[in-house]
Amino acid sequence: MQEEELIEKQIESEDIFHGVILHVKRDTVMLPNGNTAPRELIRHVGAVCIVPITEDNRVFVERQYRYPIDQVITEIPAGKLDFMGEDRLEAAKRELWEETGITADTWIDMGLYYPAAAYSDEKITMFLARGLHLGEQHLDADEFLNLTCIPIHDLVSDILSGVITDGKTQASVLKAAAILNILSE
Amino acid sequence: MQEEELIEKQIESEDIFHGVILHVKRDTVMLPNGNTAPRELIRHVGAVCIVPITEDNRVFVERQYRYPIDQVITEIPAGKLDFMGEDRLEAAKRELWEETGITADTWIDMGLYYPAAAYSDEKITMFLARGLHLGEQHLDADEFLNLTCIPIHDLVSDILSGVITDGKTQASVLKAAAILNILSE
Repeated sequence: MQEEELIEKQIESEDIFHGVILHVKRDTVMLPNGNTAPRELIRHVGAVCIVPITEDNRVFVERQYRYPIDQVITEIPAGKLDFMGEDRLEAAKRELWEETGITADTWIDMGLYYPAAAYSDEKITMFLARGLHLGEQHLDADEFLNLTCIPIHDLVSDILSGVITDGKTQASVLKAAAILNILSE
Repeated sequence: MQEEELIEKQIESEDIFHGVILHVKRDTVMLPNGNTAPRELIRHVGAVCIVPITEDNRVFVERQYRYPIDQVITEIPAGKLDFMGEDRLEAAKRELWEETGITADTWIDMGLYYPAAAYSDEKITMFLARGLHLGEQHLDADEFLNLTCIPIHDLVSDILSGVITDGKTQASVLKAAAILNILSE
Protein backbone atom coordinates (compact mmCIF):
# COMPACT_ATOMS: atom_id res chain seq x y z
CA MET A 1 0.00 0.00 0.00
CA GLN A 2 1.03 3.59 -0.49
CA GLU A 3 1.84 5.12 2.92
CA GLU A 4 -0.97 7.68 2.68
CA GLU A 5 -3.40 4.77 2.27
CA LEU A 6 -2.49 3.49 5.76
CA ILE A 7 -3.93 6.59 7.44
CA GLU A 8 -7.07 6.37 9.61
CA LYS A 9 -9.61 9.21 9.57
CA GLN A 10 -11.30 10.46 12.74
CA ILE A 11 -15.11 10.12 12.64
CA GLU A 12 -15.98 10.72 16.29
CA SER A 13 -14.09 11.82 19.41
CA GLU A 14 -15.32 11.41 22.97
CA ASP A 15 -13.72 12.70 26.19
CA ILE A 16 -13.73 9.92 28.78
CA PHE A 17 -11.66 11.33 31.64
CA HIS A 18 -9.80 14.56 32.22
CA GLY A 19 -7.38 13.87 35.06
CA VAL A 20 -4.33 15.63 36.46
CA ILE A 21 -1.88 13.64 34.29
CA LEU A 22 -4.01 11.56 31.93
CA HIS A 23 -6.61 12.78 29.49
CA VAL A 24 -8.42 9.71 28.13
CA LYS A 25 -10.32 9.75 24.85
CA ARG A 26 -12.33 7.18 22.92
CA ASP A 27 -12.43 8.01 19.23
CA THR A 28 -13.91 6.24 16.23
CA VAL A 29 -11.88 6.08 13.03
CA MET A 30 -12.43 5.01 9.45
CA LEU A 31 -9.91 2.36 8.41
CA PRO A 32 -8.25 2.14 4.97
CA ASN A 33 -10.84 -0.52 3.96
CA GLY A 34 -13.80 1.73 4.89
CA ASN A 35 -14.65 -0.13 8.11
CA THR A 36 -14.86 1.76 11.39
CA ALA A 37 -12.88 0.93 14.54
CA PRO A 38 -12.61 2.31 18.10
CA ARG A 39 -9.39 3.97 19.26
CA GLU A 40 -8.79 4.41 22.99
CA LEU A 41 -5.99 6.81 23.75
CA ILE A 42 -4.22 9.04 26.23
CA ARG A 43 -3.41 12.67 25.57
CA HIS A 44 -0.24 13.61 27.51
CA VAL A 45 1.51 16.98 27.85
CA GLY A 46 4.89 15.55 26.79
CA ALA A 47 8.14 14.96 28.62
CA VAL A 48 11.92 15.07 28.57
CA CYS A 49 14.63 12.73 29.80
CA ILE A 50 18.32 13.32 30.33
CA VAL A 51 21.51 11.21 30.34
CA PRO A 52 23.81 13.33 32.56
CA ILE A 53 27.31 11.96 32.01
CA THR A 54 30.55 12.96 33.77
CA GLU A 55 33.96 13.42 32.13
CA ASP A 56 34.93 9.94 33.35
CA ASN A 57 31.78 8.38 31.82
CA ARG A 58 29.61 7.92 34.87
CA VAL A 59 25.87 8.55 34.61
CA PHE A 60 23.58 9.97 37.30
CA VAL A 61 20.50 7.78 37.70
CA GLU A 62 17.63 7.61 40.16
CA ARG A 63 16.04 4.84 42.14
CA GLN A 64 12.36 5.64 42.22
CA TYR A 65 9.14 3.86 43.24
CA ARG A 66 6.64 3.48 40.40
CA TYR A 67 3.15 2.79 41.69
CA PRO A 68 1.62 1.16 38.55
CA ILE A 69 4.24 -1.61 38.56
CA ASP A 70 4.79 -1.62 42.37
CA GLN A 71 8.58 -1.59 42.05
CA VAL A 72 11.57 0.63 42.79
CA ILE A 73 13.37 0.91 39.44
CA THR A 74 16.46 2.61 38.03
CA GLU A 75 15.76 5.53 35.68
CA ILE A 76 17.59 8.45 34.17
CA PRO A 77 16.29 11.88 35.28
CA ALA A 78 13.05 12.79 33.49
CA GLY A 79 9.94 14.86 33.88
CA LYS A 80 6.80 16.19 32.27
CA LEU A 81 6.58 19.54 30.53
CA ASP A 82 5.01 22.24 32.71
CA PHE A 83 2.62 23.16 29.89
CA MET A 84 1.83 22.06 26.32
CA GLY A 85 4.43 23.51 23.96
CA GLU A 86 7.02 24.35 26.63
CA ASP A 87 10.55 24.63 25.27
CA ARG A 88 11.95 21.13 25.73
CA LEU A 89 15.54 22.14 26.44
CA GLU A 90 14.34 24.53 29.17
CA ALA A 91 12.21 21.74 30.64
CA ALA A 92 15.19 19.36 30.58
CA LYS A 93 17.40 21.91 32.37
CA ARG A 94 14.72 22.42 35.04
CA GLU A 95 14.04 18.72 35.60
CA LEU A 96 17.74 17.87 35.86
CA TRP A 97 18.31 20.72 38.33
CA GLU A 98 15.28 19.84 40.46
CA GLU A 99 15.91 16.10 40.61
CA THR A 100 19.70 16.07 40.85
CA GLY A 101 20.92 19.64 41.50
CA ILE A 102 23.08 19.36 38.37
CA THR A 103 23.60 22.05 35.73
CA ALA A 104 25.40 21.28 32.46
CA ASP A 105 27.53 23.23 29.96
CA THR A 106 26.68 21.09 26.93
CA TRP A 107 23.29 19.76 25.88
CA ILE A 108 22.86 17.37 22.95
CA ASP A 109 19.37 16.64 21.59
CA MET A 110 19.28 12.86 20.94
CA GLY A 111 15.87 12.91 19.26
CA LEU A 112 12.34 11.79 20.01
CA TYR A 113 11.01 8.75 21.79
CA TYR A 114 7.37 7.67 21.65
CA PRO A 115 6.83 5.31 24.62
CA ALA A 116 3.49 3.85 23.51
CA ALA A 117 2.36 5.27 20.15
CA ALA A 118 -0.45 2.68 19.92
CA TYR A 119 -2.42 4.33 22.74
CA SER A 120 -0.61 7.48 23.94
CA ASP A 121 0.57 10.65 22.21
CA GLU A 122 3.30 11.17 24.83
CA LYS A 123 6.43 12.44 23.14
CA ILE A 124 9.71 12.39 25.08
CA THR A 125 12.76 14.36 23.93
CA MET A 126 16.01 12.63 24.94
CA PHE A 127 18.98 14.80 25.93
CA LEU A 128 22.61 14.08 26.66
CA ALA A 129 24.14 16.51 29.20
CA ARG A 130 27.89 16.98 29.60
CA GLY A 131 30.15 19.41 31.43
CA LEU A 132 28.28 18.78 34.67
CA HIS A 133 28.32 21.03 37.74
CA LEU A 134 27.00 19.33 40.85
CA GLY A 135 24.69 21.03 43.35
CA GLU A 136 21.85 20.31 45.73
CA GLN A 137 18.58 18.58 44.77
CA HIS A 138 15.40 20.71 44.75
CA LEU A 139 12.72 18.05 45.09
CA ASP A 140 9.06 18.81 45.73
CA ALA A 141 7.99 18.00 49.29
CA ASP A 142 6.10 14.97 47.92
CA GLU A 143 8.86 13.66 45.62
CA PHE A 144 11.11 10.85 46.80
CA LEU A 145 14.07 9.32 44.96
CA ASN A 146 17.59 8.10 45.64
CA LEU A 147 20.31 9.49 43.38
CA THR A 148 23.30 7.36 42.40
CA CYS A 149 26.14 7.63 39.87
CA ILE A 150 27.10 4.56 37.84
CA PRO A 151 29.83 3.96 35.22
CA ILE A 152 28.13 3.84 31.81
CA HIS A 153 29.76 0.47 31.09
CA ASP A 154 27.97 -1.00 34.12
CA LEU A 155 24.72 0.69 33.13
CA VAL A 156 24.97 -0.76 29.60
CA SER A 157 25.71 -4.21 31.09
CA ASP A 158 22.64 -3.91 33.32
CA ILE A 159 20.55 -2.96 30.27
CA LEU A 160 21.83 -5.84 28.15
CA SER A 161 21.33 -8.37 30.97
CA GLY A 162 17.76 -7.19 31.61
CA VAL A 163 18.32 -5.68 35.08
CA ILE A 164 17.23 -2.21 33.89
CA THR A 165 13.65 -2.39 32.67
CA ASP A 166 12.68 1.26 32.18
CA GLY A 167 12.15 1.85 28.46
CA LYS A 168 13.42 5.43 28.09
CA THR A 169 16.49 4.56 30.18
CA GLN A 170 17.34 1.58 27.95
CA ALA A 171 16.97 3.56 24.73
CA SER A 172 18.62 6.78 25.94
CA VAL A 173 21.65 5.18 27.58
CA LEU A 174 22.30 2.83 24.62
CA LYS A 175 21.95 5.81 22.25
CA ALA A 176 24.28 7.95 24.38
CA ALA A 177 26.88 5.17 24.58
CA ALA A 178 26.78 4.69 20.80
CA ILE A 179 26.89 8.43 20.07
CA LEU A 180 29.87 8.85 22.43
CA ASN A 181 31.49 5.71 20.95
CA ILE A 182 31.79 4.25 24.43
CA LEU A 183 30.59 0.74 23.54
CA SER A 184 33.47 0.13 21.16
CA GLU A 185 36.21 1.28 23.57
CA MET B 1 16.43 6.68 52.17
CA GLN B 2 16.23 2.92 52.43
CA GLU B 3 14.57 1.54 49.28
CA GLU B 4 11.60 0.12 51.19
CA GLU B 5 10.92 3.64 52.50
CA LEU B 6 10.28 4.87 48.93
CA ILE B 7 7.20 2.66 48.55
CA GLU B 8 3.71 4.19 48.31
CA LYS B 9 0.73 2.46 49.95
CA GLN B 10 -2.66 2.21 48.25
CA ILE B 11 -5.46 3.87 50.26
CA GLU B 12 -8.24 3.98 47.66
CA SER B 13 -8.75 2.62 44.16
CA GLU B 14 -11.41 3.82 41.70
CA ASP B 15 -12.29 2.37 38.29
CA ILE B 16 -12.64 5.22 35.80
CA PHE B 17 -12.98 3.47 32.44
CA HIS B 18 -12.99 -0.13 31.31
CA GLY B 19 -12.31 -0.04 27.58
CA VAL B 20 -11.28 -2.61 24.99
CA ILE B 21 -7.56 -1.86 25.37
CA LEU B 22 -7.25 0.59 28.26
CA HIS B 23 -8.44 0.11 31.81
CA VAL B 24 -8.08 3.46 33.59
CA LYS B 25 -7.89 3.77 37.37
CA ARG B 26 -7.57 6.67 39.79
CA ASP B 27 -6.02 5.56 43.05
CA THR B 28 -5.00 7.41 46.19
CA VAL B 29 -1.70 6.52 47.84
CA MET B 30 0.09 7.34 51.07
CA LEU B 31 3.54 8.81 50.38
CA PRO B 32 6.68 8.09 52.43
CA ASN B 33 6.11 11.36 54.36
CA GLY B 34 2.53 10.42 55.32
CA ASN B 35 0.86 12.77 52.83
CA THR B 36 -1.66 11.42 50.33
CA ALA B 37 -1.46 11.82 46.56
CA PRO B 38 -3.56 10.81 43.53
CA ARG B 39 -2.24 8.25 41.05
CA GLU B 40 -3.86 8.00 37.62
CA LEU B 41 -2.91 4.87 35.77
CA ILE B 42 -3.59 2.43 32.99
CA ARG B 43 -3.91 -1.31 33.48
CA HIS B 44 -2.76 -3.10 30.29
CA VAL B 45 -2.77 -6.82 29.45
CA GLY B 46 0.93 -6.78 28.46
CA ALA B 47 2.72 -7.20 25.16
CA VAL B 48 5.66 -8.66 23.27
CA CYS B 49 7.97 -7.31 20.58
CA ILE B 50 10.37 -9.12 18.29
CA VAL B 51 13.59 -8.29 16.42
CA PRO B 52 13.50 -10.85 13.55
CA ILE B 53 17.00 -10.87 12.08
CA THR B 54 18.26 -12.75 9.02
CA GLU B 55 21.59 -14.56 8.70
CA ASP B 56 22.97 -11.54 6.81
CA ASN B 57 21.85 -9.15 9.57
CA ARG B 58 18.75 -7.62 8.05
CA VAL B 59 15.74 -6.92 10.27
CA PHE B 60 12.05 -7.15 9.32
CA VAL B 61 10.24 -3.97 10.33
CA GLU B 62 6.78 -2.55 9.70
CA ARG B 63 5.50 0.81 8.55
CA GLN B 64 2.30 1.35 10.46
CA TYR B 65 -0.09 4.25 11.08
CA ARG B 66 -0.44 5.21 14.74
CA TYR B 67 -3.58 7.21 15.38
CA PRO B 68 -2.59 8.94 18.66
CA ILE B 69 0.43 10.60 17.02
CA ASP B 70 -1.10 10.80 13.49
CA GLN B 71 2.01 9.40 11.82
CA VAL B 72 3.17 6.35 9.88
CA ILE B 73 6.20 5.11 11.83
CA THR B 74 8.74 2.29 11.60
CA GLU B 75 8.37 -0.42 14.26
CA ILE B 76 9.54 -3.93 14.91
CA PRO B 77 6.74 -6.54 14.99
CA ALA B 78 4.81 -6.43 18.27
CA GLY B 79 1.46 -7.19 19.77
CA LYS B 80 -0.63 -7.50 22.89
CA LEU B 81 -1.11 -10.72 24.81
CA ASP B 82 -4.42 -12.45 24.04
CA PHE B 83 -5.14 -12.73 27.77
CA MET B 84 -3.53 -11.82 31.10
CA GLY B 85 -0.78 -14.30 31.91
CA GLU B 86 -0.46 -15.74 28.39
CA ASP B 87 2.91 -17.39 27.75
CA ARG B 88 4.99 -14.60 26.29
CA LEU B 89 7.07 -16.73 23.93
CA GLU B 90 3.88 -18.24 22.48
CA ALA B 91 2.45 -14.74 22.05
CA ALA B 92 5.64 -13.59 20.30
CA LYS B 93 5.54 -16.56 17.91
CA ARG B 94 1.89 -15.83 17.07
CA GLU B 95 2.39 -12.08 16.57
CA LEU B 96 5.44 -12.57 14.35
CA TRP B 97 3.60 -15.15 12.24
CA GLU B 98 0.45 -13.05 11.91
CA GLU B 99 2.19 -9.77 11.07
CA THR B 100 5.04 -11.08 8.91
CA GLY B 101 4.39 -14.77 8.10
CA ILE B 102 7.78 -15.59 9.62
CA THR B 103 8.60 -18.53 11.88
CA ALA B 104 11.97 -18.80 13.65
CA ASP B 105 14.22 -21.62 14.86
CA THR B 106 15.88 -19.64 17.67
CA TRP B 107 14.23 -17.32 20.18
CA ILE B 108 16.28 -15.25 22.65
CA ASP B 109 14.51 -13.47 25.53
CA MET B 110 16.12 -9.99 25.74
CA GLY B 111 14.30 -9.01 28.93
CA LEU B 112 11.56 -6.64 30.00
CA TYR B 113 10.69 -3.16 28.85
CA TYR B 114 8.30 -0.87 30.74
CA PRO B 115 7.18 1.81 28.25
CA ALA B 116 5.68 4.24 30.77
CA ALA B 117 6.02 2.99 34.35
CA ALA B 118 4.85 6.37 35.74
CA TYR B 119 1.28 5.81 34.53
CA SER B 120 0.97 2.38 32.89
CA ASP B 121 1.65 -1.17 34.07
CA GLU B 122 2.23 -2.35 30.49
CA LYS B 123 5.11 -4.82 30.45
CA ILE B 124 6.68 -5.74 27.11
CA THR B 125 8.96 -8.76 26.70
CA MET B 126 11.58 -8.21 24.00
CA PHE B 127 12.62 -11.18 21.85
CA LEU B 128 15.33 -11.71 19.28
CA ALA B 129 14.36 -14.24 16.59
CA ARG B 130 16.90 -15.98 14.33
CA GLY B 131 16.87 -18.84 11.86
CA LEU B 132 13.96 -17.27 10.02
CA HIS B 133 11.58 -19.06 7.63
CA LEU B 134 9.56 -16.69 5.48
CA GLY B 135 5.86 -17.19 4.75
CA GLU B 136 2.66 -15.29 4.10
CA GLN B 137 1.23 -12.62 6.42
CA HIS B 138 -1.99 -13.46 8.29
CA LEU B 139 -3.31 -10.01 9.11
CA ASP B 140 -6.76 -9.34 10.55
CA ALA B 141 -9.15 -7.84 7.99
CA ASP B 142 -8.83 -4.50 9.82
CA GLU B 143 -5.03 -4.51 10.21
CA PHE B 144 -2.87 -2.57 7.76
CA LEU B 145 0.91 -2.38 7.63
CA ASN B 146 3.75 -2.43 5.12
CA LEU B 147 6.54 -4.91 5.78
CA THR B 148 10.15 -4.10 4.84
CA CYS B 149 13.56 -5.62 5.55
CA ILE B 150 16.46 -3.31 6.48
CA PRO B 151 20.15 -3.99 7.25
CA ILE B 152 20.62 -3.62 11.01
CA HIS B 153 23.46 -1.14 10.43
CA ASP B 154 21.02 1.17 8.62
CA LEU B 155 18.40 0.65 11.32
CA VAL B 156 20.92 1.55 14.04
CA SER B 157 21.95 4.64 12.03
CA ASP B 158 18.29 5.68 11.77
CA ILE B 159 17.90 5.22 15.52
CA LEU B 160 21.02 7.24 16.37
CA SER B 161 20.06 10.05 13.97
CA GLY B 162 16.54 10.28 15.39
CA VAL B 163 14.66 9.04 12.31
CA ILE B 164 13.19 6.09 14.22
CA THR B 165 11.09 7.38 17.10
CA ASP B 166 9.29 4.29 18.39
CA GLY B 167 10.58 3.54 21.89
CA LYS B 168 10.50 -0.28 21.92
CA THR B 169 12.13 -0.34 18.47
CA GLN B 170 14.99 1.90 19.62
CA ALA B 171 15.65 -0.14 22.75
CA SER B 172 15.19 -3.59 21.21
CA VAL B 173 17.28 -3.01 18.09
CA LEU B 174 20.14 -1.37 20.02
CA LYS B 175 20.02 -4.25 22.50
CA ALA B 176 19.99 -6.84 19.73
CA ALA B 177 22.90 -5.16 17.93
CA ALA B 178 24.93 -5.06 21.16
CA ILE B 179 24.08 -8.67 22.09
CA LEU B 180 25.04 -9.85 18.60
CA ASN B 181 28.18 -7.68 18.70
CA ILE B 182 27.15 -6.05 15.45
CA LEU B 183 27.88 -2.46 16.49
CA SER B 184 31.58 -3.13 16.96
CA GLU B 185 32.09 -4.95 13.65
